Amino acid sequence: MYQVPIGVSARHIHLSEAHIAILFGSGYELTVLKELSQPGQFAATETVAVVGPKGRFDKVRILGPARGKTQLEVSQTDAFALGIAPPVRESGNIAGTPGIKVIGPAGEVDMPEGVIVAARHIHFHTSDAAKWGIADKQKLTVRVEGERALIFENVVARVSEQFALDMHIDTDEANAAGVKTGDTAVILK
Amino acid sequence: MYQVPIGVSARHIHLSEAHIAILFGSGYELTVLKELSQPGQFAATETVAVVGPKGRFDKVRILGPARGKTQLEVSQTDAFALGIAPPVRESGNIAGTPGIKVIGPAGEVDMPEGVIVAARHIHFHTSDAAKWGIADKQKLTVRVEGERALIFENVVARVSEQFALDMHIDTDEANAAGVKTGDTAVILK
Repeated sequence: MYQVPIGVSARHIHLSEAHIAILFGSGYELTVLKELSQPGQFAATETVAVVGPKGRFDKVRILGPARGKTQLEVSQTDAFALGIAPPVRESGNIAGTPGIKVIGPAGEVDMPEGVIVAARHIHFHTSDAAKWGIADKQKLTVRVEGERALIFENVVARVSEQFALDMHIDTDEANAAGVKTGDTAVILK
Repeated sequence: MYQVPIGVSARHIHLSEAHIAILFGSGYELTVLKELSQPGQFAATETVAVVGPKGRFDKVRILGPARGKTQLEVSQTDAFALGIAPPVRESGNIAGTPGIKVIGPAGEVDMPEGVIVAARHIHFHTSDAAKWGIADKQKLTVRVEGERALIFENVVARVSEQFALDMHIDTDEANAAGVKTGDTAVILK
């Protein structure tokens, strides 16, 4: 039984240094609200607004630290509300994705691209992956128990020395399965 | 291969005759916007607002005809936005569920109970169920194909002479699976 803790990702944004400077002011540094499961990653105290053609979300959590490129991760439910059609993608793979307007206290950015629905995935530390015979990029099948029990196919394995064992699903997936952060999933194959 | 068409249920409300009279005026009759997959059921032209402790939805579609008891069906995503905690229930089983305020053009109703997250289910005409060896209330396991392929467990079979073959899932479930109305699911067992 390969058990994995579940982490549910609400909509959030990763910002580039350049966009932090525009949205919050030159030289601004994000402050840590809460450490996340992946080492070095944190939820920032700061939020931004994102504005699509059909709707907006006023308090979208920023996850730090700054990244090379700005990336907004939303659920499909969020995407319908915003009026945009982002693809399901792995984090970092944003070529050809839609953009959106981002508003901070010091300025606005029209992201030309970078909105995705994150592909469900499991972070494995290299040692976990070796022990369980799992390769980076492998597609896994993962079951969650309960009243809304279901089996997720196409769960991407992501293996790194920098990762801690955690399965990341979005709020649509968590709600469809009736699970929350801290619940447990089982890798079937 | 037991193939079933999928129907995605957005949030909607069924109203009692008494509540239609309060919300729209005495003697008011709902008008048909669109026939639904189940014989005699329709989406009404009319909508109502529903107001929870944390949020509201202004245009909630009414499904007709009138029922014995008013029932609001929302996704778990909707429930978080409204600030209420409805259970996953089969339609009609509303004892002990939360209520909500409903606002129409002619008046308001404080529903004492009746908000549910609908349990995923498949409507079978008696002849389909007989042919496939499926019993009313049976829990089925159902797979959907695609980029977000997944297998739903605990899908309730509902068998009646009044039903047409259709699998009903909510928007969280549809988004988690990457499917829309008109796509096809396969009953595995």
